[in-house]
Amino acid sequence: MAGVDRRTLEAIHRTALGLVSQFTGRRPAEFGTYASIVRIGDVRLAVHADGVGTKALLASLPEDYRCIGIDAVAMNVNDLVSAGARPIAFLDYIAMARGDPDVVKWVLEGICTACRESGVVFAGGETAVLPGVFSSERTFDVVGFALGLVEEPVLRNAVREGDVLVGLESSGLHANGFSLVRKVLLGEGKYGLDDLVPSLGRRLREELLRPTRLYVRPVLELLRRGPRPTGIAHVTGGGFLKLRRLVGRRRLRVNLDSLPEPPRIFKLIQEEGGIDWSEMCRTFNMGIGMAISFRESDVDEAVRKLRRLGYSSPVIGRIERGEGVVVNGVRIDG
Amino acid sequence: MAGVDRRTLEAIHRTALGLVSQFTGRRPAEFGTYASIVRIGDVRLAVHADGVGTKALLASLPEDYRCIGIDAVAMNVNDLVSAGARPIAFLDYIAMARGDPDVVKWVLEGICTACRESGVVFAGGETAVLPGVFSSERTFDVVGFALGLVEEPVLRNAVREGDVLVGLESSGLHANGFSLVRKVLLGEGKYGLDDLVPSLGRRLREELLRPTRLYVRPVLELLRRGPRPTGIAHVTGGGFLKLRRLVGRRRLRVNLDSLPEPPRIFKLIQEEGGIDWSEMCRTFNMGIGMAISFRESDVDEAVRKLRRLGYSSPVIGRIERGEGVVVNGVRIDG
Repeated sequence: MAGVDRRTLEAIHRTALGLVSQFTGRRPAEFGTYASIVRIGDVRLAVHADGVGTKALLASLPEDYRCIGIDAVAMNVNDLVSAGARPIAFLDYIAMARGDPDVVKWVLEGICTACRESGVVFAGGETAVLPGVFSSERTFDVVGFALGLVEEPVLRNAVREGDVLVGLESSGLHANGFSLVRKVLLGEGKYGLDDLVPSLGRRLREELLRPTRLYVRPVLELLRRGPRPTGIAHVTGGGFLKLRRLVGRRRLRVNLDSLPEPPRIFKLIQEEGGIDWSEMCRTFNMGIGMAISFRESDVDEAVRKLRRLGYSSPVIGRIERGEGVVVNGVRIDG
Repeated sequence: MAGVDRRTLEAIHRTALGLVSQFTGRRPAEFGTYASIVRIGDVRLAVHADGVGTKALLASLPEDYRCIGIDAVAMNVNDLVSAGARPIAFLDYIAMARGDPDVVKWVLEGICTACRESGVVFAGGETAVLPGVFSSERTFDVVGFALGLVEEPVLRNAVREGDVLVGLESSGLHANGFSLVRKVLLGEGKYGLDDLVPSLGRRLREELLRPTRLYVRPVLELLRRGPRPTGIAHVTGGGFLKLRRLVGRRRLRVNLDSLPEPPRIFKLIQEEGGIDWSEMCRTFNMGIGMAISFRESDVDEAVRKLRRLGYSSPVIGRIERGEGVVVNGVRIDG
């Protein structure tokens, strides 16, 4: 089921990129992995659009809405810094079945909080009431659009064999894989959102509706003052498949056993859903929200710096000769 | 009913702007009417987000999807030029209940066509499959984000008494007021989308799913080479209420009887829905998609130039001492 969703999505994306290429004469590659680059004179701008997906379906309390607002910013600004751009401005789009001031208020509160934490100007956006569009009166969708500035020196993928991969820990699921999460954990006869789940040590709501972590400050710090990353990957939809783009025609070997405290939610989903390891790694961040590669000689300093900035960042992998993404000994791509 | 929708929306927008002001310490006015301005060094960028609303609910054929794609671009780039900005880049967000390659293909075809016509780079975007979010398997939502460059000389609202308002004709409903349109024309026992409507002289689908007109080229031409507009208003959600911002504390007197061929769709909606004139003018563009004011001495040249560019642009009003927006003798605001 998860596989169908992911593969459908990937097919749609491929179709879309192919069509855009056909319609515009531009090669899809020019769109970039995490942002598209637009030039105005000497200024290189990075632009990006991303939504929070079906995570919003679970939100029903002010704190949940706030989380969705933070997610909308995080999904975008984390992508921008992964393209080596400093996020400058953010716009939102909130679509609702009916005009619910509570949703608007708390989503915006989350957005403004995350913008502040990321050093981004909130530049407004659009609130749309769309009767007849949504599955229930309480359903809403939140999308973000972010604008960034590509600063000198430009980040280029400089990954080579021997580079070491550092993982910045996630705050849990972030905002990806929720169609699968809902099916596996919230399907009939399964958990309720307000159930206390012993293996998590908390209510399911607290786990699922925790905001996506923001990685703007640590990544910008590395880009500006070093140690210089050789590659950056925001681990979102598609999970560790996102790392394929980082390593190109090399092999990335990841070992997640090195995480000091892997979030328990992934184990719960895997067990409840009977999902195999490879599929888990192709859907979720597995505890790593951002992966950054360094030359081996830079790794210790990078990890220390990240720790000082408040980001626990274990070494999780290495780039080797060969191909594919191997996580805990299992090749997850191809 | 239409009034409820509009008022709810306005209340939500007011709430949102108030909250943003509270959360960020920025005054809502800084967001601008049609776009927010973001400065990077000496470069002034205009950013904007807008969607196609419930018009997408009516789309079921390739040509319809294409129309929705054009609308998504038009709603954004028409707003940008109304803020005096040259549109530079556009990003899309398409959310769907299931991954429908046909929707993606034709929406993108429309987007690319409209981008080309507007001189805008299509910079990609996001396609999201969101099971459980939409009212049916065939429902989708399209949102656009546009980036523009504020060129010298900056357009400032310079409207004064005696200025004359020129209306650039719309192609019909554009992408606003569709919740009311669906209720009035497509409710139980009313028309079907494929009915031939005698008073329109065509099938309802052809009328309702006609793309929003793009006004980028004529407006940029006026901004660059004159005659210089004193104010520009994109007539969208809220209809002629949008003109309030143009005239400030003056009166705008509009006479729509001067339109050579007012689109018949508005008369049909008014009659079928028993909607009063004032409400019609607060919901629809009434045949005028863009309104531009000029000094009286510039009007003849402006109208000639617009006609040369292919835009029929009757003189529709005048700015007077007083207050309020008066359309065909009826004050529609306040």
